[in-house]
Amino acid sequence: METHSQEKQRAAMKTYLECIPCFMNQIIRTGRLLNITEGDIYDLMAEFGAGLSDIEMHDPPPKTAISIYSAIAKRAGTDDPFRELKKESMLKALGLLPSLASRLERLPSPLSMALRIACAANVIDFGISTHFDLDKELERALSGNFGLWEEDVFLDALKKTDWVLYLGDNAGEAAFDRLLIRAMHKEVVFATRGRPIINDVTMDDALMAGIDEDARLVSSGSPAPGVILDMCDPAFVKLFETAPLIVSKGQGNYETLSETKRPIFFLLKAKCQVVARHLAVREGEMILARGKGFEHRH
Amino acid sequence: METHSQEKQRAAMKTYLECIPCFMNQIIRTGRLLNITEGDIYDLMAEFGAGLSDIEMHDPPPKTAISIYSAIAKRAGTDDPFRELKKESMLKALGLLPSLASRLERLPSPLSMALRIACAANVIDFGISTHFDLDKELERALSGNFGLWEEDVFLDALKKTDWVLYLGDNAGEAAFDRLLIRAMHKEVVFATRGRPIINDVTMDDALMAGIDEDARLVSSGSPAPGVILDMCDPAFVKLFETAPLIVSKGQGNYETLSETKRPIFFLLKAKCQVVARHLAVREGEMILARGKGFEHRH
Repeated sequence: METHSQEKQRAAMKTYLECIPCFMNQIIRTGRLLNITEGDIYDLMAEFGAGLSDIEMHDPPPKTAISIYSAIAKRAGTDDPFRELKKESMLKALGLLPSLASRLERLPSPLSMALRIACAANVIDFGISTHFDLDKELERALSGNFGLWEEDVFLDALKKTDWVLYLGDNAGEAAFDRLLIRAMHKEVVFATRGRPIINDVTMDDALMAGIDEDARLVSSGSPAPGVILDMCDPAFVKLFETAPLIVSKGQGNYETLSETKRPIFFLLKAKCQVVARHLAVREGEMILARGKGFEHRH
Repeated sequence: METHSQEKQRAAMKTYLECIPCFMNQIIRTGRLLNITEGDIYDLMAEFGAGLSDIEMHDPPPKTAISIYSAIAKRAGTDDPFRELKKESMLKALGLLPSLASRLERLPSPLSMALRIACAANVIDFGISTHFDLDKELERALSGNFGLWEEDVFLDALKKTDWVLYLGDNAGEAAFDRLLIRAMHKEVVFATRGRPIINDVTMDDALMAGIDEDARLVSSGSPAPGVILDMCDPAFVKLFETAPLIVSKGQGNYETLSETKRPIFFLLKAKCQVVARHLAVREGEMILARGKGFEHRH
């Protein structure tokens, strides 16, 4: 088995030139969302701009995001500036859950639809855009207009596994992950972020979503909007290294884990050109794709 | 008559937060267009980022653009990095001119169509985007799907004037300006930029477009992709202050002159959200709009 320091050698997507203006736009959007003044937002941008020459371009973007969102949180005067917004989207998600669950129960094999719903829910992301239409995305999910979608390979891998490590992404999204977790009919360990970052799911959020009713909860310890193994809790790294199957939700987890050789499936919406290009899909497409390690196992 | 220093007091659109990531994207796009290495492009971005705290946000974006594009030109190792691209789009424009001209000649009143063609040609702009479809834009112009379009007010103003000061924008676009200049049937002075900046029209470009056959040429002296009166030649400023009617092409001229009280009409495609919002139109719309001073005359 390889260690996570070996993993690091060929780790993950790097930061592309396009990520820099995207980070600038994220500062503007989230700054306004959090009612930070235009002047303070400009200061945050200037601060980020002044540090550009120190950015490691071979790092994945979520690593760079740590310092950006820490600075935003500091300026907003709280450790968890997205707390209320997370709660809001969580309540909306939980409100939709019962009708979706009973809809799934009536299907002969709900797993296929649960995969689509969990993927569509990835649209709940205040980092990339403050405007999203959850209902529309769910409708799209039900009509099934997807890009790269390796469902057969996933179902085959799922059949052969005892348990699944499930890497959560955004807080509101996590409520919908419950549907997929149930539909998989396997032991599931659900991993949260180590602490609040943007609107990503923390242990508190996961408990609010009631995921503990369907899975064992664990904190990855990651301070990033992604899974950076070098920054994770050793106990989580061990889980990651031994899990027979990993489901990775969202773009941040893809950006940090795209090169891993572990048996991983990425379930996400490709929300930007850079990630879409890396996946060889079109921006906006829904993706269920096996990781590089998975191909090696076959 | 007011002087241009009085003008400055309430001069022009300011730089908005959104302009910063847009500038970053411009560095990436034009850098790649000019075959500057990714590493050098990153250096240009870091240099711009490091200087962010010195940017005057009350300046119009074209003023900030001067130093950005100077740095790009320096890195590209030439004073006029867009020379070949300008020539290319100029030749393409000149190739389309005869058929458009004969089409106009067959119309009972060609001025209306000439306005639309000159506006559609504003799509030729390597600063905002390297991808544009001139044929498609011209086709759109002929079918006439426009936003704010004060043609009646313009025709009325034109009737009452002896001569027109015409502020050019992009080089290739200037070939199509000839159609409008001819259709106006007035004495026209066509103003170019003072020196090469992005793909804006210079005296050399205007001569290549043959505008001297239809108008008197003058250099504004402006080093910016817009008209910043404080940086223009005094002779041009005098023309600007005395012209009975001014036609201002493109976004850069609008950004620098939006607040002028001179009798001006803006003819442009709103290429970004910031300018569209300022004009209260939608992004991508074609605009013919009287300036603030013009309303005062009525």
